[in-house]
Amino acid sequence: MSEDRHPAPLPPGVTRRPVRRYTADGRLAPTETDTVALEEPLDIRISGDTVAVTMRTPGADRYLVTGFLFAEGLIHSAEDLGGLAHCGRPGEEGYGNIVEVTPAPGLVIDLERMGATKRGTLTTAACGVCGRRSVEDLMASCSPVPPGPGLPASVLAHATEHLRSVQPNFARTGGVHAAAALDERGRVLAAFEDVGRHNAVDKVVGALVLEHGLRSARASQPAASRPTVLVVSGRVSFEIVQKAAVARCPFVASVSAASSLAIDLAERAGITLATFVRNGRFNVYTHSERLREG
Amino acid sequence: MSEDRHPAPLPPGVTRRPVRRYTADGRLAPTETDTVALEEPLDIRISGDTVAVTMRTPGADRYLVTGFLFAEGLIHSAEDLGGLAHCGRPGEEGYGNIVEVTPAPGLVIDLERMGATKRGTLTTAACGVCGRRSVEDLMASCSPVPPGPGLPASVLAHATEHLRSVQPNFARTGGVHAAAALDERGRVLAAFEDVGRHNAVDKVVGALVLEHGLRSARASQPAASRPTVLVVSGRVSFEIVQKAAVARCPFVASVSAASSLAIDLAERAGITLATFVRNGRFNVYTHSERLREG
Repeated sequence: MSEDRHPAPLPPGVTRRPVRRYTADGRLAPTETDTVALEEPLDIRISGDTVAVTMRTPGADRYLVTGFLFAEGLIHSAEDLGGLAHCGRPGEEGYGNIVEVTPAPGLVIDLERMGATKRGTLTTAACGVCGRRSVEDLMASCSPVPPGPGLPASVLAHATEHLRSVQPNFARTGGVHAAAALDERGRVLAAFEDVGRHNAVDKVVGALVLEHGLRSARASQPAASRPTVLVVSGRVSFEIVQKAAVARCPFVASVSAASSLAIDLAERAGITLATFVRNGRFNVYTHSERLREG
Repeated sequence: MSEDRHPAPLPPGVTRRPVRRYTADGRLAPTETDTVALEEPLDIRISGDTVAVTMRTPGADRYLVTGFLFAEGLIHSAEDLGGLAHCGRPGEEGYGNIVEVTPAPGLVIDLERMGATKRGTLTTAACGVCGRRSVEDLMASCSPVPPGPGLPASVLAHATEHLRSVQPNFARTGGVHAAAALDERGRVLAAFEDVGRHNAVDKVVGALVLEHGLRSARASQPAASRPTVLVVSGRVSFEIVQKAAVARCPFVASVSAASSLAIDLAERAGITLATFVRNGRFNVYTHSERLREG
C-alpha cells in the first residue's frame, strides 16, 4: 500500500508490483512501487496423485497441507504422516509449489472420503504449478481483451459506489459479497450478492450470458455486447480476474486489494485492474493506458 | 444485524437466527432475533453427473450455474445450453439445491477441460444437497465438541485483538486474511496470514497437529492438547466451522459475520460461535452457556 523508493528486503508472503495512483485532484500519478500479497498455486499430492490445487500465499506449506488433510478427515494426527516435502529442486520452475505427502507405513489414506473426484470447485483447472504457468495456461484458451475502450478515470473512481445500492443484504447482515457489471457509461447491467465472492461474480457473468448475449472469444459468433467494468466488493484473486478475462471485460474495479497473481494475469489478459476504489480514488496496476485523466 | 421484534417477511438471501449480544457494560443481553446471510449447498450436474458442489446464497441459480460453466470454458454462449432446471419437486428436502444442465443438442461438454477429477478443493466433501444434510453428514464423521471449558466473556470479547499483532502483511498490502488459535488463557498458540481465508485456518490447524499434538476425535489416542479459540479475520462460513469442529475447538471468534449454515453447524457441533468481535463487544449465536459474564 505504501510507496517505497528504496525497497528494503521483502518480508515473506508479499512482493512488489508497479502501481499508479489516481488522486483526489483527478490525475494519475507517476508509477511507484506497491507491496502486494503473494498468491501462488500449491499442488497437494498423496503418493504421487494430485488431490487438490489451492491458491495460497507461499510459506508454512507443511502446516497448510497438514491442516487441509486433517480438516478433510484424511489424517487424524501427526503420526499418520510418513513424509511431507516439496518436490523437485530449488531453482526449478514451480519449485516450492508441489507438496508430496507419504502416509505413515501401513496407513492407507482413503481418498474416497473427500469425494475429490466429483465435488471440486473447478476454478483452478487451468493452473500449472507456478504462477507464470497458471497465467500462461489460462491465456492459451482465452485470448487477451483487445485494446480500448477508453474510459474517463473519474468513471472508474466512482464505480464501486454502484455496489452500495445493490447490497441490501450487506446492510442487513454484514456478511455478503457483491459484484456488478457496468456498461461504458457506468450503468449497472447486472448486480448480485452472495456469501461467496466468486459466486457473486458467476451470477453477474451468467446474467450477461443469458440476458445480454455475452459470448466467449471461442464462441462461433462475436458477442452482441460486452460489459465494460466488473466491480467487486472483496479482494481480487487470480480467480476473479480469470472470470473477467473469459467474459472479455476490460476493467476490473475492487473496493479492496489485489494479489500478485491477479495483477500478473490482468497484465497478460489485457485487463485494466484498479483496487481500493473508494471515495473517488484508486490504485491501478495494469493497462492504465485505457484511462483518460479527469 | 439489527434487532427485529416484529419480523417482516424475509427478503431473499437472508434468514433469521437467535442471537445474544455481549455489551460494552460486560453482560450478555437476552436473546433477540438476528438477520444473517443464507448459505446452502448447490449441486451442479451436467447430464446427471455432479461436476461441482458450491456453497452459495440461494437465488439466481440459473445465472450462477451459467456463469460458472462459462468461466470454466465449458460453455461459450447461451446457445450452448439446452436446458437448465432445478431437480426434484417443490417441498422435497433439498429441492432448489440441485441444478441439472442439459447441453444444447449435438454439443458435448468436455469435462476434462476443467480437470474436476483432480483439482477440486475438497471442503465440500461432506455436503448433502441441503444445509441440514450437510451438517448431519459432517457430524456423522465428527462427534460434537464436549461441553466446557467455560470462558470469561471478556476474554472472547478481546480475542480478535490478537490478530492485529500477527497481521504484518495486512498492514503492508490490505489484502490478506489472518487466523489464530488461542489457549484457554488467550495466549496465541499459532497464527498465520494467507490470501485465502480457509488457507490461514488450515495453516493454524496444521501447526497445532504438528507442533502441539492435536488429534481428531477419530485418532486412536486422546489429544495431547486442544486449542480453545479459533480466531478469524474474515466471514465465518460452513467451511470455517467445519475445520473448527474437526479440530475440536470449542470457540470460534470472527471480526466479521457468520452465515446461516455456519451457525447451524456450530449449534450441532457444540461450538460457541461469536461474530463481530470488535472493541470489546460481540454477538454469540450458539452455546453461550460456555460464557461467564464479566
